[in-house]
Amino acid sequence: MSQPESVAGETSVAPTRRDRRKARTRQALIDAAREFVARQGNLDMSIQDITEAAEVGFGSFYNHFPSKDELLRAAIEDTLEEHGQLLDVQTAHLDDPAAVFAASLRATARLADSHPQIARILVRTGLRYLDSDRGLAPRALRDIRRAIDSGQFQLTNPHLALATTGGSLLGIVHMRLERPGLLDDDAPEEFAEQLLRAFGMPRRSARASARKALPDWSPTELPPEAQG
Amino acid sequence: MSQPESVAGETSVAPTRRDRRKARTRQALIDAAREFVARQGNLDMSIQDITEAAEVGFGSFYNHFPSKDELLRAAIEDTLEEHGQLLDVQTAHLDDPAAVFAASLRATARLADSHPQIARILVRTGLRYLDSDRGLAPRALRDIRRAIDSGQFQLTNPHLALATTGGSLLGIVHMRLERPGLLDDDAPEEFAEQLLRAFGMPRRSARASARKALPDWSPTELPPEAQG
Repeated sequence: MSQPESVAGETSVAPTRRDRRKARTRQALIDAAREFVARQGNLDMSIQDITEAAEVGFGSFYNHFPSKDELLRAAIEDTLEEHGQLLDVQTAHLDDPAAVFAASLRATARLADSHPQIARILVRTGLRYLDSDRGLAPRALRDIRRAIDSGQFQLTNPHLALATTGGSLLGIVHMRLERPGLLDDDAPEEFAEQLLRAFGMPRRSARASARKALPDWSPTELPPEAQG
Repeated sequence: MSQPESVAGETSVAPTRRDRRKARTRQALIDAAREFVARQGNLDMSIQDITEAAEVGFGSFYNHFPSKDELLRAAIEDTLEEHGQLLDVQTAHLDDPAAVFAASLRATARLADSHPQIARILVRTGLRYLDSDRGLAPRALRDIRRAIDSGQFQLTNPHLALATTGGSLLGIVHMRLERPGLLDDDAPEEFAEQLLRAFGMPRRSARASARKALPDWSPTELPPEAQG
C-alpha cells in the first residue's frame, strides 16, 4: 500500500553524486516547508524565506518545484508518508486486524507527544488527510475491511467508519496539542477501545485488542523530531 | 447555555429605528462574511469586496468591526450560534440524555444536506469549533455529562468523548460534502448508534436511542439557506 519511492523519482539505476545532492536539496526544501506548515498551516511566505530556511540557493527552488503550492503538496505527502511508515513499524508484529487497527489509533493519538511536528501538520492539514492515499487513511480502511471480513467488526459501511476514525483522531490530536491537561496518559487506549466497541466488538475483546503490547519507538530507524 | 443576545449588544431598552438599521448593517456584513468563509475558508479579500457583497457603504465597515479578523470571528460565532439553535429545536422534545446527544449527532451529520453553508463553515473552521462555547461543543459536553450521571454512558473522561464526537462529526460532514456518494441516507443514525455503543451503551438501547423520531425542520422558524 505504501511503497517507498526512490527520492530522485528513479528506480534501479545507482544514483550518482549529482542525483544525491539533488535529492538532498529537494528534501531540505520539503523539511523547511514542513516546519512552516507545522507552525502556521500554510506557506504564506516568500520563496526566499523558504530557500533561506532550507539553506539552499534561491535559484534552486524552481529546479525542484514549479510553485509553492506544489511544495506544499509535497510537504504534506512527505508527512503523511512518514506517519504511514511509523504505523507500519508499530503494527508489524500484529496479525489480528482489530489489534492492528487499534495500534494505529493509539500511535496516532500519541503523535502530539512522540512527533509533535507531524501532529501539528495533521491538524492543520485537517480533513483533507482523510482523502489521501498515504498515511493513516488507506491503512485504516484496509484494517476496517479486514476486521469486517474476519467477523470482528459488524459494519455495513467502511467509509463511514473511516470518517469517524480519522475525524475523531484529529479531534484528539488537536486536544492534546491545544489543551494537553484534558486527556490523561491512558486516553489513546481508552479511545481505541471505544472505537472497537463502536464498530461492533463486544466489550471484553475490544478491551483486549486495544491494549496489546506495542513495540517501543525505534529511534535508530525513525527518530522523533528533536523539535516540533 | 446559549442565551440569545440583543443584536445591538443592548438589553431591555426598546430599539430605535437607528438601532434596527445598525443591527441590519452589522448582520449584512456577517452574512457576507459567512458566504466568503463557506466558499474559501477565510476572508482573504478586500474590505471593499465585503461591503459590496453585503450591499452596504464601504465606510460603514469600521463602524461595526475594527478589522477583518474581528468580522471573521463574528461570522464563525454567528454560524455556531445558528447551529446551536438548530440543535435546541431538534432536541426540545427529548428528555433522555443519550437520545438528546444522539439527535444532535444526527442533525449535525445531516447539515451538508439541510444547511450546506453551515456545513462548509464548520469543516473550514475545523477543529477550533471544538473549543467554542457556542454550537455543538457545549451542548455535547452537557449531554455527555448528563448521560454519565444517568448511568447511560460508561466513561471516565467527558473531554475525550467530546474530541471523538466533534472530530468524527467533522469527518462525516466533510465526507458528505466532498464525496457524497460514499454515505447512505441512514449513515447519521448508524453513526449515532456507533457512538452510543462506544460510550458504553448496550447494543439494543444504543439502537433505540439513536433512532427516536425527530421533528421535521421548522422552516418558519429557522429556514435552511436557499444556497450553500
